[in-house]
Amino acid sequence: MDMTSLERALALDAADELAPFRERFIIDDPELIYLDGNSLGRLPRASAELARELVSAQWGRRLIRGWNDSWFGLPERIGGKIAGLLGAAADEVIVADSTSVNLFKLATAALQARPGCRRIVTDALNFPSDLYVLQSVLDLCGGGHLEVLRSSDGMTLPTEDLAAALNEPTALVSLSHTAFKSAFVHDMAAVTDLAHRAGALTLWDLSHSVGAMPLDLEAYGADLAVGCGYKYLNGGPGAPAFLYVRRSLQPLLRNPLAGWFGRQDPFGFALEYEPEAGMRQFLTGTPPVLSLALIEPGVDLLLEAGMERLRAKSVRQTEYLISLWEEVLQPLGYSLGSPREAARRGSHVSLSHPEGWRINRALIEQMHVIPDFRAPDLIRLGVTPLYTTYTELHRAVEALRRIAAERLYEEYPVQRQGVT
Amino acid sequence: MDMTSLERALALDAADELAPFRERFIIDDPELIYLDGNSLGRLPRASAELARELVSAQWGRRLIRGWNDSWFGLPERIGGKIAGLLGAAADEVIVADSTSVNLFKLATAALQARPGCRRIVTDALNFPSDLYVLQSVLDLCGGGHLEVLRSSDGMTLPTEDLAAALNEPTALVSLSHTAFKSAFVHDMAAVTDLAHRAGALTLWDLSHSVGAMPLDLEAYGADLAVGCGYKYLNGGPGAPAFLYVRRSLQPLLRNPLAGWFGRQDPFGFALEYEPEAGMRQFLTGTPPVLSLALIEPGVDLLLEAGMERLRAKSVRQTEYLISLWEEVLQPLGYSLGSPREAARRGSHVSLSHPEGWRINRALIEQMHVIPDFRAPDLIRLGVTPLYTTYTELHRAVEALRRIAAERLYEEYPVQRQGVT
Repeated sequence: MDMTSLERALALDAADELAPFRERFIIDDPELIYLDGNSLGRLPRASAELARELVSAQWGRRLIRGWNDSWFGLPERIGGKIAGLLGAAADEVIVADSTSVNLFKLATAALQARPGCRRIVTDALNFPSDLYVLQSVLDLCGGGHLEVLRSSDGMTLPTEDLAAALNEPTALVSLSHTAFKSAFVHDMAAVTDLAHRAGALTLWDLSHSVGAMPLDLEAYGADLAVGCGYKYLNGGPGAPAFLYVRRSLQPLLRNPLAGWFGRQDPFGFALEYEPEAGMRQFLTGTPPVLSLALIEPGVDLLLEAGMERLRAKSVRQTEYLISLWEEVLQPLGYSLGSPREAARRGSHVSLSHPEGWRINRALIEQMHVIPDFRAPDLIRLGVTPLYTTYTELHRAVEALRRIAAERLYEEYPVQRQGVT
Repeated sequence: MDMTSLERALALDAADELAPFRERFIIDDPELIYLDGNSLGRLPRASAELARELVSAQWGRRLIRGWNDSWFGLPERIGGKIAGLLGAAADEVIVADSTSVNLFKLATAALQARPGCRRIVTDALNFPSDLYVLQSVLDLCGGGHLEVLRSSDGMTLPTEDLAAALNEPTALVSLSHTAFKSAFVHDMAAVTDLAHRAGALTLWDLSHSVGAMPLDLEAYGADLAVGCGYKYLNGGPGAPAFLYVRRSLQPLLRNPLAGWFGRQDPFGFALEYEPEAGMRQFLTGTPPVLSLALIEPGVDLLLEAGMERLRAKSVRQTEYLISLWEEVLQPLGYSLGSPREAARRGSHVSLSHPEGWRINRALIEQMHVIPDFRAPDLIRLGVTPLYTTYTELHRAVEALRRIAAERLYEEYPVQRQGVT
């Protein structure tokens, strides 16, 4: 069989033991090829049902009693389930706020736990938003140095580069575990070891890892982590984020954003703050219940499918995409913007092309394929093994081929426009 | 007609021009007397409909394209509508995060705008969460003094007490406009004037004022404000909060929680932070879209009914409640925990009783009346003129009378339990 044929894709789908999970999502536009589950995961059927229940029965009928019924415990309950995806204990994870706000809390707490040291190490593969937050933390804590390591190939950062940067005392190493542009994956165990030798705590942004690959924070010795709820977790647009604090660190760190939801006995309304024990101390204000509760069904699906099986499929699918790129797209000027080594690659494949922006528009508008575009020229193809099919990947590559071969992108302006 | 009769209540309802607004809410348990709209507002019919649209059509079908369709602009669009309730311009208000996180942002920004001065004045009538946040801000900014003015009657704080406290240089005066326990309302114009003379900026928590009474931030000269979306705005459990910054201050303040949603051109993913102009700079991370979007229908209802008419009804209803208290409840040991003067009272009436906690349980469990309890002994009766009827108030008072007269509370334990 021709390895690039549609028949091959259909055969791979037929042999996919995870294929039935696609039915657990609402997919009412089957012609749409959605390769952006790493920006916003699809809608689980169970979430659509839960949303009705949340609004009509819980808010509408139970009203304020909803807090006693279930809402008050949602941050821990859903956090505990996410812990199962992270290789963490249930009492080490809680859901709260946005990824950026959680990063602020934990980076500030980490700096305060390292008095006299004001150096933070990160890299330029990290989310820019994380760099903004880290700089904010330093500014607010009285200054310090944010070392942003540059990637020589724009795609990866060898652990040796971190080793060199960690030759001097450092308070915090904060990195995206999986880089949002290239999908490069840091070696968390090795980096953590280096960080600890430099006296630093580690703070990982897991937004592009959680739900995409098994993690074992405990085995890696990770100290702190945050991550988002709306990508591979399928929690819905802008779903709240989570934060992880290694159990032994929990009594040593202090949430700099003290608020009533992190207080002992919040409904006692005492004038002085006394942090709650455990992860709850890292809460601040009242959580957005509807957006929060809707994280749970997507997490349940991941737990049911199992991260080992999902990762195996994700690797097979990204390998498949890369093999199609090599055969079909490379000759047309597309370059691979993600690592070839599967162990160092997350669940998306980025392709660059000098006409990337215009190709991306043509993909969306002419081909009904939704990838994501990342400046300056990256087309990011997200594989979400709960619902992505080989046939979809095949059709997306065929669309990319036609757009380049037939120069279908030429009708679009060169400039990037719009929000995404 | 006996002023305390049910007939009188029915007659007042019949004459109420705002009564039809009750039909705009889903009230499928008409026996329930809900007097806690100041903790969690009821579900507008339009919100139930919007929730279906948000989940199934926007998230489910439009997927990531939802950001371009409408989500990206929600913080300003809904903020602009809330501005209409505050007497502010549309470009002075934005929706983001929780009230506590927003308070943190604005208090920090205000302190940074008053270099060399580290004194914040507040009072003990304020939300305790606000005191936690203000103390956090001082701790993080290198120390300072939080002056917490005590109320001599536990209910009010005369403006003269603030005048005395503002005899020395002060960076910030931060108060709840309407006190969450007693409903006491500060004189915002007078306090602002005193604060400005002391060199301080003012930061108001409007959580118990917005949607409960007309405000005119511009006329009062208010500098900064925050407020919550889930009380009188009817935005749903834990709905995000809003923040207000007087236009002339916007270029002078800097959001200490820099994140990608507050950056110019966030999808350019530049490594350096450049704040967006105007209110958008006060955003941080990705907002919880479902909880955010559901604020809008409740705000629309308030705008449609008009805050002047709503306030007039609110005053009539709280006066009515107080007159019933005086006739029926005072002889049974209930004390009034709210100001008598309507101009200094928000939209709830608090009653205290030595057996307050047990009476509150009996109200909920035996009488199907839901008030809110606030330690140590306050039963808080919230009037939400969009849907509260005089008949409900009458029935609630009758329930309070029976519980005390027949000592129906005696079957409950003395200790406070549970979440609310």
